[in-house]
Amino acid sequence: MRVPYETMQAEFRRVLEKYGITGDDAALSARLFADASRDGIYTHGLNRFPKFIKSIENGSVDVKARASVSQRLGMLERWDGHRGPGNLNAYLCMRRAIELAHENTIGTVALSNTNHWMRPGNYGLMAVEAGCIGILWTNTVPNMPPWGGREARLGNNPIVFAVPNGDTPVLLDVAMSMFSYGKLESYARQGKELPVDGGFDRDQHITRNAADILETHQCLPIGYWKGSGLSLMLDLVASALSGGRTARQVGELPTETELSQVFIAIDVNRLPDGEDFARRVRDTLADLETSAPVDPARPVYYPGKNMMRTRLDNLKNGIPVEESVWEGVLRL
Amino acid sequence: MRVPYETMQAEFRRVLEKYGITGDDAALSARLFADASRDGIYTHGLNRFPKFIKSIENGSVDVKARASVSQRLGMLERWDGHRGPGNLNAYLCMRRAIELAHENTIGTVALSNTNHWMRPGNYGLMAVEAGCIGILWTNTVPNMPPWGGREARLGNNPIVFAVPNGDTPVLLDVAMSMFSYGKLESYARQGKELPVDGGFDRDQHITRNAADILETHQCLPIGYWKGSGLSLMLDLVASALSGGRTARQVGELPTETELSQVFIAIDVNRLPDGEDFARRVRDTLADLETSAPVDPARPVYYPGKNMMRTRLDNLKNGIPVEESVWEGVLRL
Repeated sequence: MRVPYETMQAEFRRVLEKYGITGDDAALSARLFADASRDGIYTHGLNRFPKFIKSIENGSVDVKARASVSQRLGMLERWDGHRGPGNLNAYLCMRRAIELAHENTIGTVALSNTNHWMRPGNYGLMAVEAGCIGILWTNTVPNMPPWGGREARLGNNPIVFAVPNGDTPVLLDVAMSMFSYGKLESYARQGKELPVDGGFDRDQHITRNAADILETHQCLPIGYWKGSGLSLMLDLVASALSGGRTARQVGELPTETELSQVFIAIDVNRLPDGEDFARRVRDTLADLETSAPVDPARPVYYPGKNMMRTRLDNLKNGIPVEESVWEGVLRL
Repeated sequence: MRVPYETMQAEFRRVLEKYGITGDDAALSARLFADASRDGIYTHGLNRFPKFIKSIENGSVDVKARASVSQRLGMLERWDGHRGPGNLNAYLCMRRAIELAHENTIGTVALSNTNHWMRPGNYGLMAVEAGCIGILWTNTVPNMPPWGGREARLGNNPIVFAVPNGDTPVLLDVAMSMFSYGKLESYARQGKELPVDGGFDRDQHITRNAADILETHQCLPIGYWKGSGLSLMLDLVASALSGGRTARQVGELPTETELSQVFIAIDVNRLPDGEDFARRVRDTLADLETSAPVDPARPVYYPGKNMMRTRLDNLKNGIPVEESVWEGVLRL
């Protein structure tokens, strides 16, 4: 089943208004959810929407609160999210980072006390649409053991890099765990083996069996000890800049809330060699794609390229939905 | 064989002066090389020193040139390395980023046209000693295939994060490839299997056999497609900020030179909650280390902790050296 982008957006807006998010904010939040599904990030679009509504119901998200600036510290601007909706807060902070980048080449906004931002790529694309490079990351509840450990002590702390490149920007959105729990569940449901090692089984052996990893909750960091260290550092830097909670402190709360996030924009148009940079990007991407492929049937592509194909298809033919999820939203 | 730290430093200084680096610069460069070996990073200390001398001889490094500021673009300061010695250039740029952080909380310096910075952790530790968080990365010559490709099109682009934490700072220094060529060579020499997958063999199967990977030169990015994307993004951002060459453009030169680097310092003491942040760091590290270990004999530790043990041992008992390398330096 496929649902038109506009229909999905209108339906999200109807539900959000029912739950107390009004006017332009409802329209914006609805668009951000619909954009995720439009671009093929179904896990953080339609499929995440019911969970977002639950986080309003359980009090994690305060629908009336919005992020506002709390401190200006030289080149750093700190915002307090007041536990408002994570996507609206992130939107406001990215918008502000872009404004600052227009003034100072680089803009840095750090946000404390916020909620899950849903699809992080949205804010990277905001930067790109404003002619900026976007770099943003968040901490999360502890959901990944450090390398060598069995118990979750680190977040998977996704980071986004977005670089302008005409119609098909470069967009990278990666968590520090090899696979998200959503991905593990999907492989387990289908009984499919993971394409690469994903975590530990109960005998403490590394495995590609998603069901075994869901049992131990011991997912692997990307690059083993390297991703473990990167996750730790992204968490500490987000907490330093924002003044907000570390992943460990988020884990002390009854639900995943009061997160710390960082939004950086770099205004490429303010660089005297902005046009030459655009050429350097194009040349690098073209060079990447000429690498002979390991599997002749699967040419090399750069991050973000396939997304634009999915977007065009979904805008033309409607967004593929899991019927039960879509019908659940219609009933909200 | 173990060599006292002071002896090693004096010997490096003697050779550097012979090759045209004089006065304080010779002392500083010698110290940076010796510090790497002192902290156990032998590959980028003593063992790298003869290669550095060769890069002077082959003209990649101009011993008389030093990085200098080239453009001030709002919050970004661009420096031109003029192909001077990579470690001295990196030192100057990190020192300037720290100065800017003291003024504006965050300092960002981007450096073009420089040479290999030897051990990157040195500059992270500079930040920490000045009460700052340090974040720095470099691009490199293309030495890693993108995910799905067989030919090197990306650099391994190491990144460092350093966070102050009393006597034992948190220090992460990771390249975007799973293993460096130096590591692969060391495993191959010893005929030892890599602890995790490291690259592809000639039949395009993923392998732990270092010799096979040295044959194909197809090393694995950390987290497969994720590290491939991260490497690309670090390269593009370094080139954007510095105005310097991308990894692809570095690959057009006869030797690895004219690199692009980024140095960011965040002054923790300028944060109104700096002391509370120090507590958040301590609590996070303590929490990390209480995770039950996968292997009961190997407790979890945070990045940088073991380094301080090695440093104390090497300062007390001398720095372990490969005799042939040390004698080679004595003969220079």
